[in-house]
This record gives sequence, structure tokens and C-alpha cells, in this order.
Amino acid sequence: MQQPATLTPSPEAIVDLLGVLAYGELTAFNRLAADAWLAPTLGGRAALAKMASAEIGHYGRLADRLGELGVDPEVAMAPFVGPLDAFHESTLPADWLEGLVKAHVFDGIAADFYTEIAAWLDPPTRALVLDVLEDSGHAAFAVHEVRTAIAADDRLAARLSLWARRLVGEALSQAQHVAAERDALTELIITGSGDLAAIGALFGRLTDAHVARMRRLGLSS
Amino acid sequence: MQQPATLTPSPEAIVDLLGVLAYGELTAFNRLAADAWLAPTLGGRAALAKMASAEIGHYGRLADRLGELGVDPEVAMAPFVGPLDAFHESTLPADWLEGLVKAHVFDGIAADFYTEIAAWLDPPTRALVLDVLEDSGHAAFAVHEVRTAIAADDRLAARLSLWARRLVGEALSQAQHVAAERDALTELIITGSGDLAAIGALFGRLTDAHVARMRRLGLSS
Repeated sequence: MQQPATLTPSPEAIVDLLGVLAYGELTAFNRLAADAWLAPTLGGRAALAKMASAEIGHYGRLADRLGELGVDPEVAMAPFVGPLDAFHESTLPADWLEGLVKAHVFDGIAADFYTEIAAWLDPPTRALVLDVLEDSGHAAFAVHEVRTAIAADDRLAARLSLWARRLVGEALSQAQHVAAERDALTELIITGSGDLAAIGALFGRLTDAHVARMRRLGLSS
Repeated sequence: MQQPATLTPSPEAIVDLLGVLAYGELTAFNRLAADAWLAPTLGGRAALAKMASAEIGHYGRLADRLGELGVDPEVAMAPFVGPLDAFHESTLPADWLEGLVKAHVFDGIAADFYTEIAAWLDPPTRALVLDVLEDSGHAAFAVHEVRTAIAADDRLAARLSLWARRLVGEALSQAQHVAAERDALTELIITGSGDLAAIGALFGRLTDAHVARMRRLGLSS
């Protein structure tokens, strides 16, 4: 992996990164709040609602940082509204378990991806990005709920595995739209990685982590 | 108003009160999160999402207190799920402004009502109740949005005034169901008020505050 000794991401790339993260948090809030409504128990509903609240706290920190950079958060988020909304609309969970799997799989890949990018950023931005990616407790909760449900009905594993594969396909498709339109962000990933082989290696690491996450859920990838 | 010098609410009444407040916060979270989705701007969406998060923080404090009293929050909330869900299902906002008016009108009456009850409680429970009733900033936000919208289209005032009257009617109807079924809570209100004339006075104060709130929104009651 040939990583440049010094890398100064363009201001456009930083704003794009904070913008996509901010809109991601805002949609994560709405998604988890909607999932909360599907919870089979009031305890499950409250647990999801608390996680949704953590996401909006993260949103606030990203919006504040954009403000400090002199950028209106709404303007920074605007390019990512279409692709993220399209992803979520094409993958509406039919039930509680599909919602948990979706949040776990999608947030897991997104967190791994942004953590890789964070390594190329200036220290304060890196610290902010790593902070807002911190898991709100959803992962352990989702693993417990999904494994318990599969233990009680093993046909669920096949259905949820298929669902996760569809999620990854839809996410990749929307990510390609973003990459094609946001030159500064794409440039950051190419320059940060170093070369095409390094980008390949990055996607290899994301895939490995995804497979491990699916295994922890009791699902096949 | 003949208020008894000493009043010791029954443990059942306290658990009922904390239970209805807790379920109220949990549904407020879901309601505000759904309203957030109706926001015409991303800034409005984020603002509502933050208010929803404040409600879930309040929920956590009430659930913790119930736990300290040795009561499972789910058990304490259970009697109020039916009436509160019925109220919300019969008053689903059709748009952003209806959502804002509903939250403002309903939360306003509820907060005034519980504030009156809080006066009869032991100091720690009173402090908790008053704390969780604290406005998350929704009131000022709703007043600003509704007044701005009415200024731009004065036919809205008639429609939203009618909507608010329907809300109050549905809320009273569900409150009567609760009063008929929760003896300890009803007993607390009767004993706390002192006599029937005092209960009448209490409802008079709630009505006056409601009328004032409607006027601030630019609506007629």
C-alpha cells in the first residue's frame, strides 16, 4: 500500500465528507425511530429510541463543525439527500428483524469505510469523524435479538441472509452514484489509498469485516 | 380551594403517574420523529429530531425511577398504551403544521395538568416530574412556524383552529377512559384537589392556559 507521506484533503472533500456523514446521521435517526415503532416490546422500542437519539447528537456535532467551516449544513448535505433517500426507500424493512439487520449491516460497512478515510484527515477532523462513528450499542443489541429469533425459527436465517445481500447490492449501487458525482470525495479516496491496488485492498478489508459481522448475526453472506 | 395539609399519595398512584408520563414520553418521541420526516427543510427535520431526543432522555429518567421503586417500566406503562395509542391514531397529522399544532396543544395541556398534580407529591418525585415536563424548545419553534405559515396564507388559521379543537375533544375522551379505569390516579386527583369545586377550578386553569396558547399560535379556540 503506497500511502503518500503527506496528504492535504481539499476543503471540498472535507465538506462533502462531513455533509454525507451528517445526512447519514439524520436519516439514521429517522430509520431507527421508525424501527423503534416495529419493536415487539416497549423495552425494545425504548432501546431503539435511545440509539436514535445518539445519532442526532452526532448530527449536531457534524453540523456545528460545518458551521465553523462557514458552510451551511443544509448545503453540505444536499448532494447526498437523493442517493441516501433512494437507498432507504428501496430497502424499507418489512419487520423488526429486517430493521435490525439493515441498521447493523449498513452502519457497519459505513463505519468501516469512514474509519479508513479518517486516517487521511487532519487530527481534529479525524477525531470528530471517529467519535460520531462510535457504535451507540446497536450492534450488540441487534446481534442478540437476531440470534435469539433465529434460534427459535431457523428458516429466518435464510430470509435475513438474502435481505442482507440485497442491502449490500443497493448500497453499492447508490455509492457508485455518489462517487460518480462528487469528484473531490472520490479524489480523496484515490489519493488517500495511494493507488488502485490499495483501493482494491480497502474494499477487501470492508468485505472481510462484513462477512465477519454477518457470521456474528448467525447469517451467511 | 380546600387542600389537605398533608397528602400521601398511594404507591399505586405514583406508579400510575410515572407510568403514564413514561409512556407519554415514549410516544412523544415517536410522534416528533414522524413529524421530523414531514419537515419542509433539513433544518426543520434536525430541529424536531433533537426535540424527540430530549423526550427519550426524559423517558429514561422516569424508567430509572420506576426501577428504583421495584416496578418494571413496561408493567407501569401497560395500562396507558391503549388510550394513548388510540388518541394518537385518531389524530394523525396530515402535514407538518398539523404535527406542530398537535404537539404544542397536547403537550401544553398535559404539562399544565401534570404540573398541578406534581404539587401534591413528595419532593423528589415532584422534582422529577417537573424536570421531565420541561419544554424541549418545541413551543417557541411551533409558534414561530405556525405564525409564519398563517401570515402567508390566512385560510390556514381556520383549518388549524378546527384541528386543535378536534385534538382537545379526542384527548378528553381518552382521559375519561383512563380516569374510569385507574382508581388510584383518580383518587389522587380528587384528594389532591380537595373537593369537586377545586377540580372544577383546576380544569378552568387548564382551559385558560389552553386558550392563551392558541392565541400565541395565532389560532382561535
